[in-house]
Amino acid sequence: MAIDIQLKADLPAITSQIVKTYFELKGIQHLDLCPLPSSETVVEIMDDLKEILLPGFKRRGRLTECNVIYHVGELVDKLHNRLAVQIERALCHHAKESHLCSPEKKFEYELQGQQKAFHFLRQIPEIRRLLALDVEAAFAGDPASKTCDEIVFCYPGFEAVTVYRLANALHRLQVPFIPRIMSEHAHSSTGIDIHPGATIGEYFFIDHGTGVVIGETCEIGDWVKLYQGVTLGALSFPKDEDGNLVRDTKRHPTIENNVVIYANATVLGGKTVIGHDSVIGSSVWLTSSIAPGTTVTMEKPSLRMKGNNHPHNFFI
Amino acid sequence: MAIDIQLKADLPAITSQIVKTYFELKGIQHLDLCPLPSSETVVEIMDDLKEILLPGFKRRGRLTECNVIYHVGELVDKLHNRLAVQIERALCHHAKESHLCSPEKKFEYELQGQQKAFHFLRQIPEIRRLLALDVEAAFAGDPASKTCDEIVFCYPGFEAVTVYRLANALHRLQVPFIPRIMSEHAHSSTGIDIHPGATIGEYFFIDHGTGVVIGETCEIGDWVKLYQGVTLGALSFPKDEDGNLVRDTKRHPTIENNVVIYANATVLGGKTVIGHDSVIGSSVWLTSSIAPGTTVTMEKPSLRMKGNNHPHNFFI
Amino acid sequence: MAIDIQLKADLPAITSQIVKTYFELKGIQHLDLCPLPSSETVVEIMDDLKEILLPGFKRRGRLTECNVIYHVGELVDKLHNRLAVQIERALCHHAKESHLCSPEKKFEYELQGQQKAFHFLRQIPEIRRLLALDVEAAFAGDPASKTCDEIVFCYPGFEAVTVYRLANALHRLQVPFIPRIMSEHAHSSTGIDIHPGATIGEYFFIDHGTGVVIGETCEIGDWVKLYQGVTLGALSFPKDEDGNLVRDTKRHPTIENNVVIYANATVLGGKTVIGHDSVIGSSVWLTSSIAPGTTVTMEKPSLRMKGNNHPHNFFI
Repeated sequence: MAIDIQLKADLPAITSQIVKTYFELKGIQHLDLCPLPSSETVVEIMDDLKEILLPGFKRRGRLTECNVIYHVGELVDKLHNRLAVQIERALCHHAKESHLCSPEKKFEYELQGQQKAFHFLRQIPEIRRLLALDVEAAFAGDPASKTCDEIVFCYPGFEAVTVYRLANALHRLQVPFIPRIMSEHAHSSTGIDIHPGATIGEYFFIDHGTGVVIGETCEIGDWVKLYQGVTLGALSFPKDEDGNLVRDTKRHPTIENNVVIYANATVLGGKTVIGHDSVIGSSVWLTSSIAPGTTVTMEKPSLRMKGNNHPHNFFI
Repeated sequence: MAIDIQLKADLPAITSQIVKTYFELKGIQHLDLCPLPSSETVVEIMDDLKEILLPGFKRRGRLTECNVIYHVGELVDKLHNRLAVQIERALCHHAKESHLCSPEKKFEYELQGQQKAFHFLRQIPEIRRLLALDVEAAFAGDPASKTCDEIVFCYPGFEAVTVYRLANALHRLQVPFIPRIMSEHAHSSTGIDIHPGATIGEYFFIDHGTGVVIGETCEIGDWVKLYQGVTLGALSFPKDEDGNLVRDTKRHPTIENNVVIYANATVLGGKTVIGHDSVIGSSVWLTSSIAPGTTVTMEKPSLRMKGNNHPHNFFI
Repeated sequence: MAIDIQLKADLPAITSQIVKTYFELKGIQHLDLCPLPSSETVVEIMDDLKEILLPGFKRRGRLTECNVIYHVGELVDKLHNRLAVQIERALCHHAKESHLCSPEKKFEYELQGQQKAFHFLRQIPEIRRLLALDVEAAFAGDPASKTCDEIVFCYPGFEAVTVYRLANALHRLQVPFIPRIMSEHAHSSTGIDIHPGATIGEYFFIDHGTGVVIGETCEIGDWVKLYQGVTLGALSFPKDEDGNLVRDTKRHPTIENNVVIYANATVLGGKTVIGHDSVIGSSVWLTSSIAPGTTVTMEKPSLRMKGNNHPHNFFI
């Protein structure tokens, strides 16, 4: 095999140039003995949580009434340890945004990590209760589903909602970073982007799902069904007197109970309310509220029809 | 490291609470000695199938006319065993939806699993023939493609169609669950959602692809090209007299030969037919049939133009 | 366990049928002692590159000013070797499209592979500089982001732009195949499709991102922000006198500095220029140029409102 010796001799100079940028640029390196939460570990934690939430569907089969308590007991114990460490790192790193993380502070965050992990795990029964209702909603809402098992097994919408309910529980415990790592991982595998800060009720179903965006300050009621490409987004980005974005205001819509929003519809604005028992048709674009019991469809858009086309010489 | 002993002592109570829900809630646990099909194994089976469908492009390189038969022969044998087991589990589980899976029934499903796996593998030559035509269509239809290899190697549209043709073959053999596991896995990695029950002809090409939805009862002809965000979906969900969804009716459109459907177009309805040699323009929304040879575009939507804007204070 | 012996005896016939198609069909097998680039290795190379670009955020934690140079030095050396091999395979395979890859040619490609890998790595400092500006743009443009770390850690838009900047650097070094493998891998995990041949300026931000398509001949300036579902695509596909697609012409739009394009907007055409300081509103569809400083929104589409709806009996 041919080797260019001169190039090999020049590689250390490249290394030096790269390392130099670690001290010149801002924001894209983390050189610190205090490690960040690990995305890889958070993903493993989510896999273990799914084993507990949906036993028998994922890794471990042949679970029965007799042996399941051992399987779950061991997972709960392991989860508590691992999650506590990740939460402690998240808290420690978040604190450093404003001041140094001293040894006393670190000890405090270790204890907080274990407490928050504990309180999170206490919510698993309630999360399971909600997921059972979500599966019911999916089966009721999708004629292509033959069984509930199919939904649990492989529906991306159910996967995304499962992760949302976990991430939201951590978010409400004021755990930084980790909820977002979870939701963006689900976004990557399902194409569905639900911010952990959103509030979503019971019997929630997303069908197909690719392209759905649910913003941080959305409020969604019960028995709401969304299709692919639906955006529940922001209408404007207010700024403060220094010209910086104002964070933490309600920017995303409220969807009341028993609403269906069809494919590629867009609903925007913190003050926009979709009244209960409404239907938002496919591709509709809304920036103002809708009274309860309303069906909104696009005025049938004018279409130009022309014969004798050339199928392969057109626009995309 | 700080440890909160009291929390550790309280973890078993959480475990008990969680396990209690396994006997109270419906549909989201599978406690049974009879295991479900394994998603992980089905994904490995798909990887082995791609080795056979597209030899030299995936895992194993340096395949030649001399050694390829050993490589393929071993994979075929391994695939038959593994797929037969998964099909048997799927059949057994599906049967339990209505009655108990007795030992005699289990034996019968083991044999059926092997037969269906065999008949599936017999279809590989025909699937390869179709994929060769799909690659030809992709190269003819995409000016950004420099070589056919590039298409096989990394085009998500080709990946999604490959998995569809495999899942559809299993679907036509009345194998439950597994076709859906396959297509949802492809959906996750490509953003393209093709139901295994759809019927798709020859020379089929999806470019870019993210957001494409092809419904269960779609019928698509030859030389059809779709772009990202195209939905071929349902128009209404009929219900029976008890108010439950009617399943297994034709709800999705028919696309005849030699049609191009551009980005983000939506075509809905079981009675909707897009006539051959038609072009459906970008963002068009259709719920009724189109005669052959028609070009359909949006009436150029009125746009409001305004000078002196503030780029960062607007809606999304 | 039941075994159908006759089926097992018939499997070799299936193997023969499959292998027969390897010599009858075109384009979907690679039987050659000269292996193709390996997608798996290219993905590992990208993971190593991210370790260098964003140290401390990915695999390796506890990096400090003292030890980072060893970590990076080792990665750079390993990367140079691995990337050189993949580039050499890509060059060799690309050459075979026209003529045989002789031993002398192969030696030449080995040297070229090492040179191109070297020149690629020399660009890492500049790529880091650009990524630091991209993070700044993301933080300035997204009110849901609390810290810059969050953006580096898990924003899919930032992930897609990172891979684009790597793939584009290789593309400009005339490396075949590998840039496309990289960008399609990012497409799979983020839903964002950026062709490596596109030209993108500084302070670039994609929020949410699922469904974004940026075509091969796009030119994008500085401080440009895109939302989910935005297509910057082609308007027509010119053909030569033999009816084949003309490749390598400018088919995609130019976006000048300081432009915001909101969700699901579509901008098409190689001659289309979006003037600087413009805003393209959500769902707008454009095929002609816009003067600088213009805000373009849809004329508020007529919506049909109807009371007393039936939420579950409508179209998708």
